[in-house]
Formats: sequence, structure tokens, C-alpha cells
Amino acid sequence: MAKKTMKSKENPARICVVMGSDSDLKGLTPCMETLDGFGIDYEVYIASAHRTHEYLKRIIRKFDRAGGSVVIAAAGGAAHLPGVVAALTTLPVIGVPMVSKLLGLDSLLSIVQMPSGMPVATVATGGAKNAALLAVQILAVSDGRLRAKYEDFRAKQAEGVMAKSKKLQQKGYLHYFDE
Amino acid sequence: MAKKTMKSKENPARICVVMGSDSDLKGLTPCMETLDGFGIDYEVYIASAHRTHEYLKRIIRKFDRAGGSVVIAAAGGAAHLPGVVAALTTLPVIGVPMVSKLLGLDSLLSIVQMPSGMPVATVATGGAKNAALLAVQILAVSDGRLRAKYEDFRAKQAEGVMAKSKKLQQKGYLHYFDE
Amino acid sequence: MAKKTMKSKENPARICVVMGSDSDLKGLTPCMETLDGFGIDYEVYIASAHRTHEYLKRIIRKFDRAGGSVVIAAAGGAAHLPGVVAALTTLPVIGVPMVSKLLGLDSLLSIVQMPSGMPVATVATGGAKNAALLAVQILAVSDGRLRAKYEDFRAKQAEGVMAKSKKLQQKGYLHYFDE
Amino acid sequence: MAKKTMKSKENPARICVVMGSDSDLKGLTPCMETLDGFGIDYEVYIASAHRTHEYLKRIIRKFDRAGGSVVIAAAGGAAHLPGVVAALTTLPVIGVPMVSKLLGLDSLLSIVQMPSGMPVATVATGGAKNAALLAVQILAVSDGRLRAKYEDFRAKQAEGVMAKSKKLQQKGYLHYFDE
Amino acid sequence: MAKKTMKSKENPARICVVMGSDSDLKGLTPCMETLDGFGIDYEVYIASAHRTHEYLKRIIRKFDRAGGSVVIAAAGGAAHLPGVVAALTTLPVIGVPMVSKLLGLDSLLSIVQMPSGMPVATVATGGAKNAALLAVQILAVSDGRLRAKYEDFRAKQAEGVMAKSKKLQQKGYLHYFDE
Amino acid sequence: MAKKTMKSKENPARICVVMGSDSDLKGLTPCMETLDGFGIDYEVYIASAHRTHEYLKRIIRKFDRAGGSVVIAAAGGAAHLPGVVAALTTLPVIGVPMVSKLLGLDSLLSIVQMPSGMPVATVATGGAKNAALLAVQILAVSDGRLRAKYEDFRAKQAEGVMAKSKKLQQKGYLHYFDE
Amino acid sequence: MAKKTMKSKENPARICVVMGSDSDLKGLTPCMETLDGFGIDYEVYIASAHRTHEYLKRIIRKFDRAGGSVVIAAAGGAAHLPGVVAALTTLPVIGVPMVSKLLGLDSLLSIVQMPSGMPVATVATGGAKNAALLAVQILAVSDGRLRAKYEDFRAKQAEGVMAKSKKLQQKGYLHYFDE
Amino acid sequence: MAKKTMKSKENPARICVVMGSDSDLKGLTPCMETLDGFGIDYEVYIASAHRTHEYLKRIIRKFDRAGGSVVIAAAGGAAHLPGVVAALTTLPVIGVPMVSKLLGLDSLLSIVQMPSGMPVATVATGGAKNAALLAVQILAVSDGRLRAKYEDFRAKQAEGVMAKSKKLQQKGYLHYFDE
Repeated sequence: MAKKTMKSKENPARICVVMGSDSDLKGLTPCMETLDGFGIDYEVYIASAHRTHEYLKRIIRKFDRAGGSVVIAAAGGAAHLPGVVAALTTLPVIGVPMVSKLLGLDSLLSIVQMPSGMPVATVATGGAKNAALLAVQILAVSDGRLRAKYEDFRAKQAEGVMAKSKKLQQKGYLHYFDE
Repeated sequence: MAKKTMKSKENPARICVVMGSDSDLKGLTPCMETLDGFGIDYEVYIASAHRTHEYLKRIIRKFDRAGGSVVIAAAGGAAHLPGVVAALTTLPVIGVPMVSKLLGLDSLLSIVQMPSGMPVATVATGGAKNAALLAVQILAVSDGRLRAKYEDFRAKQAEGVMAKSKKLQQKGYLHYFDE
Repeated sequence: MAKKTMKSKENPARICVVMGSDSDLKGLTPCMETLDGFGIDYEVYIASAHRTHEYLKRIIRKFDRAGGSVVIAAAGGAAHLPGVVAALTTLPVIGVPMVSKLLGLDSLLSIVQMPSGMPVATVATGGAKNAALLAVQILAVSDGRLRAKYEDFRAKQAEGVMAKSKKLQQKGYLHYFDE
Repeated sequence: MAKKTMKSKENPARICVVMGSDSDLKGLTPCMETLDGFGIDYEVYIASAHRTHEYLKRIIRKFDRAGGSVVIAAAGGAAHLPGVVAALTTLPVIGVPMVSKLLGLDSLLSIVQMPSGMPVATVATGGAKNAALLAVQILAVSDGRLRAKYEDFRAKQAEGVMAKSKKLQQKGYLHYFDE
Repeated sequence: MAKKTMKSKENPARICVVMGSDSDLKGLTPCMETLDGFGIDYEVYIASAHRTHEYLKRIIRKFDRAGGSVVIAAAGGAAHLPGVVAALTTLPVIGVPMVSKLLGLDSLLSIVQMPSGMPVATVATGGAKNAALLAVQILAVSDGRLRAKYEDFRAKQAEGVMAKSKKLQQKGYLHYFDE
Repeated sequence: MAKKTMKSKENPARICVVMGSDSDLKGLTPCMETLDGFGIDYEVYIASAHRTHEYLKRIIRKFDRAGGSVVIAAAGGAAHLPGVVAALTTLPVIGVPMVSKLLGLDSLLSIVQMPSGMPVATVATGGAKNAALLAVQILAVSDGRLRAKYEDFRAKQAEGVMAKSKKLQQKGYLHYFDE
Repeated sequence: MAKKTMKSKENPARICVVMGSDSDLKGLTPCMETLDGFGIDYEVYIASAHRTHEYLKRIIRKFDRAGGSVVIAAAGGAAHLPGVVAALTTLPVIGVPMVSKLLGLDSLLSIVQMPSGMPVATVATGGAKNAALLAVQILAVSDGRLRAKYEDFRAKQAEGVMAKSKKLQQKGYLHYFDE
Repeated sequence: MAKKTMKSKENPARICVVMGSDSDLKGLTPCMETLDGFGIDYEVYIASAHRTHEYLKRIIRKFDRAGGSVVIAAAGGAAHLPGVVAALTTLPVIGVPMVSKLLGLDSLLSIVQMPSGMPVATVATGGAKNAALLAVQILAVSDGRLRAKYEDFRAKQAEGVMAKSKKLQQKGYLHYFDE
């Protein structure tokens, strides 16, 4: 059965994930998986800033009124989606530059170089997982339990790196990837 | 007296010029001067794609309903204005990337790399005059008199270059700029 | 049977598509398919700005005299074709930067950075479909029926995005691409 | 008298602003001015990620333990400060790429391209004001009064743009900047 | 009195220098000065590849028929001039990318990335002097006296560098520029 | 049997082709094939500017003394080979930037941005064939028969393009590549 | 059996190799192979500048106190590892920019553009072997035997190039790669 | 009186500083000042890799034979000097990319992207001071007194930053630069 992405009204989603096209879905999957891992309620939509501006507006305004907290917007090329979402809400907006024909450099500049007065919190090109983690950090500012979970994630992440280093000491660089 | 930029209803403006900020006005002035030179009725507005989306929508929708033909939109940095205008109308939209802290490379990529299904006709970084000329060419597709004017402009432009070349032959490169 | 690309004189082609080399043909195919979809008469040629300048001149001048309206020119690398076409006619010229060894950055800059006085309406790198749509928009300025068709295209395009979003709501991100 | 930047313990600063060098101070001033405008308590430090790592660690750890919420870190060139701060705390970190010899492209890439698992919320090159506004948005997620202030700021910002547009309609582009 | 740049028929110019605009004249002056220094007959023109294609064709064809040897073409932005000249003659063409709003990167790529089958010998951005020296080297392939002159130039150039090095040894780096 | 690349003394090679590594050989093959096609005698070597400077010097000095005319040097990355060859001879040097991990942008800049006083005639990234053609053009300045051959090559090249265009007219874009 | 990478205390390792992630291991292998080839004792670790700062600090401080000489640090993207290592020791640090989604340009700028007062000796993108060779050169400054080995390596490297050139002379370019 | 830069034979210079042109002298001055500050004997020359290859070779070979330890080479544009020096000695070579018309991006790539087998230790664009510090670090590997000096420098550098931070706390950001 598919993961449900619609929230009941009494327990509104805290995060809204929007992507410009379903060609971004695969690259954005680590974002949803990370939010799932932290047990955070979120909604996820496909909505083009240009092709479906009214639909996008409905999504964002509804999410905002329902008490949502953070929007994650992913797009590539002349990636206007995060900026257009920023114009539709006063909630913090996280922008994810998707990799494109120009290696994502166009996506990155189109998202990060926002004019004064209208910020978008930009993560790395293809940084789907980091977008989710940044959203977690923002929610954790006022949610001690979530912050504890995030600290736990960070500690485990560190242990993972050190375990790999230990393995490298033991097996040597020539046999590290041996079964 | 200031040039009038509002049009009476019985004779609607054919071109709508929008810039994202009054910091773009000086760089965009050759656009308006060129339109004036061709005697074309136009409107000119300051409207940010992000800060004043509703106002922008009113301007573009009104211009469209009134029978306008082409929109010229100029912006810098993460320049979303031309793309957002393109989403608000089915008229052709000409995008002018204004020079920015990154030399206009961000402006250029943010305007030209539009997704499939939503074109913006992009001119050079800082290409205010060319935006006006392209608008003239588009109008001239169905306006023989305007096309004749544009052909005249092109012929004069060629004569200007050749006159300079002749002057260079006569004065030599060391004295070309002498009075 | 091959699509016919030659037009009878009594019903001249409205658009002329030129590409610099047959290596551009595959990338440019969405342009012709889009024009076919809108039922627009067009001609299509292979003509190098450098290797076959006289041939190019004949094509463009003939198209212009026959009452054509817009030229679409596609090229890669030091992509001079759109600019050279612009010099051969006063019709609007749409430039398509083909993807190259330098990701199309050279193609893009060679097409878009045209000098003042000689614009080329540039679309995204590899933007074959958008070139056709921009040509449609230009023709639609004086052709109400074509404009209605283009508005219909835009509405359908929006519906397509929203249908995908609905599917994502229903199936969830993990099962979106399942059959 | 100088603005005070040290906070008493019973009312801890919500934001910590760190810059890599006092050569960044002038460029970062709009950040502090904006925070002042919103009446937000903040601390401001000069601390190099490389030259004074231990000092930086003390600042960030102390700010974190005291109940701070968001860190803003600004640096140029191989700008490691925001990433190093991100490693020292689990609070959200906003990175400001300062303009450099390479136009800030090096600063931008050094800040935004963070590895998976360690995000930095990046704003535009030189985006000091936007860093402050993003911090405001993050605090406002759990602070309705601050959110109302930010909505007010956004509304005033929109009015400012529209007032300029009206002035342009009235004075015309040639006289806009006249006294 | 201005340097004469027109040649008598019995003694045709060996080099033709063309620039796209008189705004390139100042930057190109070291080219003419260097040719003067080697005593090489040359012609110099202003001719735009786009605005004055027919005039350019006349110049190049006439120079070619008269027995000229090398063309130097300088342009900026979407710098098509060298490529267009290459299409008009089978003589070797040297391209000089003039510095532009994008630092000359657009000029460079527009000149150097020529398609297979149509080379342009490209020198550095702003490399006016090197264009002249390369032309000298090409002429010197079949002109022993000129080659001897060029070898002499190279030897003197080397001596100049060594004299500066000696001065640095004697005065020290702190006083090198002292009078 | 392998093509011979060593020349007898009484009939010296006119062109010397040097590449920095045998990893450049495949990319450079169109250069040798083109020279073969024009029947031009050439030598071809592998010689690193850094690893085998003395060997390179012997090759270039010997070629120069033997009456050679043009050197073609190909290299990638921090491509110093063409510039180092230029320092070893007063003959014209053609530089070919080989495609690299950075798409050849490093190779291109390392070759074309030579200091004033020491030009390298640079062709496109990967422009092996154009390097040969440029060498042919340089030799043809004083070799009427070779120039006639080159003009013939250019005419055939034009015919090839036009034949493809005719085929496109006949078969249509959907069937152009059908057998 | 795996190569041992831990050193006994009486014979401390001279070089410490650190990589940010085991995804860098394959690309960095030529570094370890080269050090092995020179018979140099080294340690090799996986340690993220951000995820495991304390662990990294322990490694570097221990290596430093034990009498180590040079650190090689490899990372990609916003590659802070070399700079962070430089802050942890006064030993020379060699930085290796690993190839990334942006071709390693982000890695390169993040490593090489270090602020004044804190150098990192940067090698080419993907330059694992050169990092090892540079470390050898640094050790050889005070180790005559190692310097002799390195000179031998350089001589053999030169011979290798010349042998390939000879083979090219003998077999010709068309048969060079034939068995 | 000028600083002396020639060393007596019994006490050979440990470092050789070479720049490609006296236009680099001003930018390179912090390098010499830093070496002076550490009391390190050095030589300083102007020597072009291309114009004065034989002179450069004499300098480097002599320095090498006399027992020198490290070469610092600075150049701009197609900056071959560091690489050419690397080919002339087996001593470690530090490359300094000088700022150029292309912001030093060409200088940087021309220096850092050296082929496998021939490293250059590259510092930041314009990184004259860091080149000196890196040389100090390399010498300090086998010179405990110098290492102690360098550690002292680093400690003082840290204190300088912290003093500025303290001043910022006391005076506030608005009065930091007040006298």
C-alpha cells in the first residue's frame, strides 16, 4: 500500500513538499524518506510555478492556513518554484536545486540569488536529504523532542563514519570493499 | 514634461514594460527610448514577481484583456519576473537579464533556462535596446508599416557602421577619436 | 511516408526552421512535432552559417519574400547560425542553443549575447519545444484562432500537472511509478 | 553609544551572528539592522573557523546551551565558517556567502554544497538582509507575534514597490529620479 | 598626420584588420602598433558581421583577390565576426575576443568553439598584440627576413625581462618602483 | 603496415604534431587523418612539456632547423604544452585543448590565455580536425596549389551540407535517418 | 592479506591520509599506491570534518604529537576537510578536490581559496597521485635518500613518455594501440 | 636601502621566489614580507616561463644545486610558470595564481590542474602570503625552531581575531570602525 500523504484536519501536516515536475520525484525521494524516518507529518505535491500557478497558490495558502510550518520546494533549470512559493507565504521556504543539463548551476543560481526582502533557504544541488534535515532543525527550534531525535541522528551519523574508518584500519584500502 | 506612459482605452498600448525594481530603470531606459523612437505605444511598470505578485497579475491581465501584444520584463539575480509574467499571459514575453553581482550570469540563466512548455524570449545581459527591437520585430509580423520602419532602422544602422569605417580609413587609428 | 516540408506557393509556410548540422536533427525534433501539433506550415533546412552561407542566404531571403513570419535557428558550440540569420532578414529570429561539449554554455552565450541593434530571441539550451511555442505565441499576436489553440494547450498542460499531483496523493511517492 | 550586543542570562539572545573577519562587517551590517528592526535579541562575533576554532566552539556551544535558536554565519572565499558552525550545533545555521575576488562564486559553492547529513541554509551572495529575514521566519514558526510583524514587513515592502510604480506612471521614465 | 591605412595596388596589404565596432578600437590599438613596428602593410576596417554583412564581404573578398594573406578579426559578446570572416575567405583568420560584460568569456567561447571544418586561430581575451604577432609568425613561414625580425623581437623581449630581474636583484622588492 | 611518420632529410616535414600523452592520441586522430587527406608531410610525437622537457626541445629545435613550418600541440588540464612549444620556436604554434575532467575549460584557458608577446593559435576544445585545417591555411598562404586544394575541400564541405538539406526536404524529419 | 595501515610507535608514520567519506576511497587509491611505491609509512582514515569533528581532531593531534610530517586530506563538494585539518595542526596540509556533481569545481574552490593565514597546498581535481608525490617532495627536502628515489621516479616517468613516442614513430598513429 | 635578495654561498637561500612579470610584484609583496618576518633567506627573480626559459632554467638549477628547498612561482592568465619550474627541479613548487582579466580563474586552472606525475602546490588566487606560510610549513617539517615560530604566528593570529571580536562586543557593530 502507498504511504498516505494527505493529513486529517485535526493533526495538520507540518511540512509541505512541492516539486515542479514528476521528473524530480526520484531525486527528491530521500527528502520524503528522511521526513518519514523522523516521523514528521508532511504533504507532497507536484505543482509547477508557471504551468499551474493557481493550483500552487491553493496548495500553499491551504497549508499555511491549516497551521503548517515549513515548505520544501524542488525544481531544476530556471528554477522559480521556491521563489514563487516564498512569495505566496510568510513561512520559511527551503529550496532544492535539482541537477539539470547545466549540472544544476542554473537551478542553484535561480534559487539562491533571491532579491533582498524575499529569502529562500537553499541547500546543495540535489540536496533532497539535507532539505528534510533543515526542515527538522527548523521545527526543532520549538520542539525539544524532535531536537533530541535530531541529536540522536547526528550522533549515529558520526558513529557510522567512525565505524567505516575502523573497518579501513582493519582491512586496508585494498580490501575495504571486499565481502 | 514627463513622457506619458498611460494609454487611453480606445488606443491601447501594444507593449507592456515591467521591471522588478527601480534600480533597473536606468539600465532599461534604452528600451523605452527605442520604443519611443519607433512611435510605439507602451506602458511601463515597476512590479516585483515576489513582493507584489497580485499587483503584477492585475497589470498583466489588464494589459492582455485590453488587447496588448508583447510584454518586456527585466530583472536581475534570481530573475523570476519574466517567467512569472509568462505564466500570467499567453502573449509572447521578452526577458532582459540585468547585470548583477555575478555579472548577470545568474540573471541570464534564471531567465533563459525556462522549462519546456513555457518559453521566455531572452536577449543579452543588459540588452534593453534589443528587447525593444525584438518587440518591434514581433509586432511587425502583422504590421507592414512598422516592418518598413524597422528595415529603415536597420539600413541606417548599417550606414552608421560604414561611415565609421570610412572615417577610420581617412583619419587612421591613431587619430580616429581626435576632434 | 515522410512528412512533407515543402509548401505550395499559394499557401506559404509561416515558419522556417534551420539547423546547422544533421547532428542537431534529433534534438530539434520536438520543435517540428510541436509545430505539427499546432497545424502550422513550416519549412525545415540544414544550412551552416559558415560552410554554406550563400545557400542559407537563398533560403532565408526566399522565405522572407514569400511572406514567412518567423525563423527558428538551432546550433551548437560557437553557434553563429541564429545571429547570421538575424542579419539576413528583419523577421524575428528564435535561437536554440544545442547541447555541446561545454554543456551548451558556449552555444547559449554565442546566441544570446548578440550586439545592440540585432536581437535573437533565445530559448533554453536544448529548448526545441519552447522555440516552437514561442513562434506560436508570436504568430498568435495577430491570429486569434491560433491564440485560442495556444491557450487550450496551456490549459491542458496545467491539467496534466495537476493530474500527476493527484496521482501522487493517491499512490504515494514510493508507488508513483508502479504500473 | 554603541548598540549593546551582550545579553543578560534571564533573557537569552535568540540569534547568534558570526563573521569570519572584520572585513565582512560592513557587508553584514544590513543583517544586524534588520534584526534590530524586528526587535530581536542577538549576539554578534568575529570568529574564524580556522584561526580560532576553539573560540568559535565556545561561542556556539554557549549560545546553544543558553537557549539560542538560530546561527547566522557569514564568510568569503573558501567559506568554511557556516559549515563548521553547523558541525558544532544542531540548531539551524544560515550561511551568507560574502562577495570575494571570484565574485562570491567560491563563497557560494563552499557554503551551499554541504555534504548529505549536514545542511546549511544558504542565502544569496551578499545576502545579509535576507539572512536576518530567514532567521525571523524560522523564529516565527513558533512565535505568532513575530510572524505578524513579518507579515506586516512584507505588506509594507509590497506597498513600497507599488508606490514606486505609481511614481513612474506619473513622472515618466525620463523624470523618475528628478527631485 | 594620421597613419595611412589604404594601400596602393602594386604593393597590396598583407594583413586585413577588422573590428566589429569603434568601441573595440582602443583595445585593438596594440595590434596596429605592433604591425607598424614590424613594418607590415595592413588595412583596418570597422565592419559588423551582422549590421553590414555585404560591406564586410566586399572588404574581405577584395583583400583576398588583391593577394592579402591573413585577416585579424576582433569582436566582443556573441562575437561572430571572426567566424563570419572565416566563411568568406580561405585565408587564415585570427580571432581576438574583446573584453565584455561577462569578462570576455562569451567573446572567447563565441570565437574559439568554431565547428569542425571552419577554424579560427584564437588568441587571449584582449590579446590584440598577440594577434599581430601571430600574423607576423604566419607571414614569416615564407618570409625569412620577417622571421629574422621576429626572432630579434623575441630576443629583445627576453632581454627586457632579464633586465627587470636584474633591477629587482639590485633594488630589492621594496624599492623596485622607486624613481 | 603503419603510416610512416619519419621524413627523409631532403624532403622535410612541414608540420610537427605533438601531444602530451598517448591518452590524447585517439582524440587527435582526425588531425593526422586530415593532414594525410591533404597529402601534407608531418611528424607526430608524444612529448610532455613537464616530464620530458629536454626531449621536447630536441624535437622542436630539430624540426625548426630542418625547415618545418607549423607546430600543432595538443594537451589537456593545465595544458602547458602549446605554450612551452611556443617558447622553443618562432614558428606559429597551433594549440588544441583536449577534453578533460572540467569539460576542457581548464585546457582551453591554459592554452588560449597566453601572455602578451607569446601567442598560441587556439582552436576549439577537441578541435583536432580544425588544427589540421588551420595548419593547411597557414601553409597555403605561400602555396597556391595547397590553397586550391583547401578551396576544393571547402566547396565539397558546402555541397555535403546542401545534400543533407535536400535529403531532409525529401524524406522529412521523421524519416531522415531511415535506411 | 590487507596492507597494514597502523604504525608501531617506535617508527611513526610520516604521512596521514584522511578522506571525508568511503565514497572517496576508490578515487584516492592512487595516493596510497604511490606512497606504498616509495616505501613511505602512512596512516589512512575516514573522518568527516562536520560529522566527526572530535574524532578528526584526535587523529590529527595524535599524528602530530607522534612526529608525523604531512597530512593529505581529500573531500568533495563544499570540501572543508583540508581546511579544517589545517586549523588543527601546523604541519603542511595537502588538499585533494574530489570530482563531484559540479565536476569538482566546487571541491576545488572550497579547498584552494583558503583565507590569508591558513594555506592548504591544493592539487588538481582528482589528483590523488599528485598529492602523494607532493608529500614525497616535501619529505625529500630533508631526506636525501627519498629525494634520490623521487629523482629516479621522474627519470623513469620521462623514459616512459619517450618510449611511447618511439612506439608511435614505429607503428604510426593508426596502429599504435594494436597488439 | 633596498633589502638584499642575493645570498652568499656559505649560507644559501632556502626559498626561491619567481614571478612571471614585474606587474606581479605588487601583488606578490606580502609573500616577501612574510618570509622576511620569519627571517627566512630567499632569492627573488622575474623570469618568464616562455620569454626567458633558459634564464629561468639557470636560476632554478643554480638554486637547486646550491641546496635550496622550496620554489614559489607566481603568474597570471595561462600561468605556466609554476608548472615549468616543477619540470626543472624535484624540489616542491608552490604556485600562486595572480588575479587576471578572468578574475584569476584562468590562472588558477592553469596552475592547479597539473597532469599526474608533476604536482604544483597551489594556493588561493592572489594568495601571496599563504604561499610564504606554506613554504614555512614545509621547511618546518625538519626545522623545530621554525615550527615553533610558525606556531607562535598562528597563536598570535588567533589572538588578533579574538581581540577584534571583543572590540565588536564592546563598541557594537555601528561604532566598530570609529576612532
